[in-house]
Amino acid sequence: MLKPLGDRVVLEAEQEEEKTVGGIVLASNAQEKPTTAKVVAVGEGRVLDNGEKLAPSVKEGDRVLFDKYAGSEVEYAGVKYLVVHEKDIVAIVD
Amino acid sequence: MLKPLGDRVVLEAEQEEEKTVGGIVLASNAQEKPTTAKVVAVGEGRVLDNGEKLAPSVKEGDRVLFDKYAGSEVEYAGVKYLVVHEKDIVAIVD
Amino acid sequence: MLKPLGDRVVLEAEQEEEKTVGGIVLASNAQEKPTTAKVVAVGEGRVLDNGEKLAPSVKEGDRVLFDKYAGSEVEYAGVKYLVVHEKDIVAIVD
Amino acid sequence: MLKPLGDRVVLEAEQEEEKTVGGIVLASNAQEKPTTAKVVAVGEGRVLDNGEKLAPSVKEGDRVLFDKYAGSEVEYAGVKYLVVHEKDIVAIVD
Amino acid sequence: MLKPLGDRVVLEAEQEEEKTVGGIVLASNAQEKPTTAKVVAVGEGRVLDNGEKLAPSVKEGDRVLFDKYAGSEVEYAGVKYLVVHEKDIVAIVD
Amino acid sequence: MLKPLGDRVVLEAEQEEEKTVGGIVLASNAQEKPTTAKVVAVGEGRVLDNGEKLAPSVKEGDRVLFDKYAGSEVEYAGVKYLVVHEKDIVAIVD
Amino acid sequence: MLKPLGDRVVLEAEQEEEKTVGGIVLASNAQEKPTTAKVVAVGEGRVLDNGEKLAPSVKEGDRVLFDKYAGSEVEYAGVKYLVVHEKDIVAIVD
Repeated sequence: MLKPLGDRVVLEAEQEEEKTVGGIVLASNAQEKPTTAKVVAVGEGRVLDNGEKLAPSVKEGDRVLFDKYAGSEVEYAGVKYLVVHEKDIVAIVD
Repeated sequence: MLKPLGDRVVLEAEQEEEKTVGGIVLASNAQEKPTTAKVVAVGEGRVLDNGEKLAPSVKEGDRVLFDKYAGSEVEYAGVKYLVVHEKDIVAIVD
Repeated sequence: MLKPLGDRVVLEAEQEEEKTVGGIVLASNAQEKPTTAKVVAVGEGRVLDNGEKLAPSVKEGDRVLFDKYAGSEVEYAGVKYLVVHEKDIVAIVD
Repeated sequence: MLKPLGDRVVLEAEQEEEKTVGGIVLASNAQEKPTTAKVVAVGEGRVLDNGEKLAPSVKEGDRVLFDKYAGSEVEYAGVKYLVVHEKDIVAIVD
Repeated sequence: MLKPLGDRVVLEAEQEEEKTVGGIVLASNAQEKPTTAKVVAVGEGRVLDNGEKLAPSVKEGDRVLFDKYAGSEVEYAGVKYLVVHEKDIVAIVD
Repeated sequence: MLKPLGDRVVLEAEQEEEKTVGGIVLASNAQEKPTTAKVVAVGEGRVLDNGEKLAPSVKEGDRVLFDKYAGSEVEYAGVKYLVVHEKDIVAIVD
Repeated sequence: MLKPLGDRVVLEAEQEEEKTVGGIVLASNAQEKPTTAKVVAVGEGRVLDNGEKLAPSVKEGDRVLFDKYAGSEVEYAGVKYLVVHEKDIVAIVD
């Protein structure tokens, strides 16, 4: 099992499809191009200046939009994951 | 539904019209060129150093001016949105 | 009405006249060249680390000197305004 | 009257004389070349993280050494002034 | 014995194998390429602003993923080690 | 008299002698090349975030090593001085 | 005697030997190449935001690994020393 440290989140990235006119992500004048993934593991959260840990705002199973250029790709037990910082997660998709 | 994280705000961007002499945004010596949009979803707000969340100063339905180059464009359920940080919102237009 | 967010201030900028020998702003060895404007709207102020809002030090009607290259120009109801951060205001001119 | 904001200080700059062998400022291996001026107005001071204002350490009438490249030059009521941040004042000259 | 200072962690790095199609780390669009190692010594932890030490979140014997370009390589008693900062450790591998 | 502000220290710099094989400062692989001087005046000290002033750790009369490229050179009453920030003082030489 | 200020530490650097296959420091893919030295003097420690001094984690006589490119070389009483900041010390070697 992968147990991310701090404010890190392990995502199982969805493959980005070819961009078409009716595609999911259109990024004409945007600086960051987010994409979607499923949360598979969450760290204990960022440590505040007073030493407390800030509970993460995403949980296992959430489907999220994240910044496309964020994170590190790793492979574990034959599956590829992406490890991002919580701040790189843009929104939860319900 | 898109549920933005932290101090993020989901905007439904208004299309910018061709700039004319009587156009809306004139930006001769300005560094940032803001434009307008409607707020459709608001995150829980920025986390302060003491761990408290700072309630956002915009709410769903507000019409806002924002920095033109800010944010990430996403498409959800066939509608295009722009996700910006609250600090990139310049003013509420009443 | 424009309601600026945070530490922003809406200014009605005075047009800068052609620089002459007897002109208002002479900036031979200065890095920033401030100019004057009237305050038309003020945000609620900068949020401090402890979550309190710091009341702005300018108010509606003040005539101020501000850094020439600061801010974003916007047009609202046919009038052009400049939105600056409070820190870009150099002095109040009484 | 000019009422500087925050930690700003309004100086009436003394003209720098031609540099001679017996001149006032010699700056062979120095990075900043300070020069002298008289304080004519002082802001309320820098705001600390806890919201308190830090009283400035110079007062009207002080003669000060300041960093030569600091500040903005302004003209008010026919007199040229220099507006600097308090941190750009190197020393009080008694 | 090596006793790392602050938030440093001493790792016994595992040799990275030749990358093959079925290899461990695949990093096509990732900015950082983490790799695995075993923790052999842990510092007392980062000092917070209030002077308290934040206990490290890894311990001796943990197998960890870390950022490939992080750290300093040292040799002690004939064994090569890598000293990294705790923030460069991405996840614990159970 | 020169009264330095904040964490500034006025030094009477000792002239650096020609570098010889037996010279004082040898700086083959060093990034900063400190040199020595005598403290002639000390500011009230750096202001901490809570508004308290941190008493300087050097006093008038101390002989100190300082970073060679730090500070501003000034001349006062016919004597040349160097004004540095306390953090640029490396060590007291007893 | 050299009395380092703040979080500075005076080291008596050990000469780095020619790098051989069996040498002490091997730094193929490492960004910083630490080396060893003996601590001869320690400052009072870094000042925290609340004004307290943080006791240094090394003491006179410790043998330490430090970042090779850190610090300033000085000569005192005919002996060459290296002055580094405590954060540049990687580990204590027991």
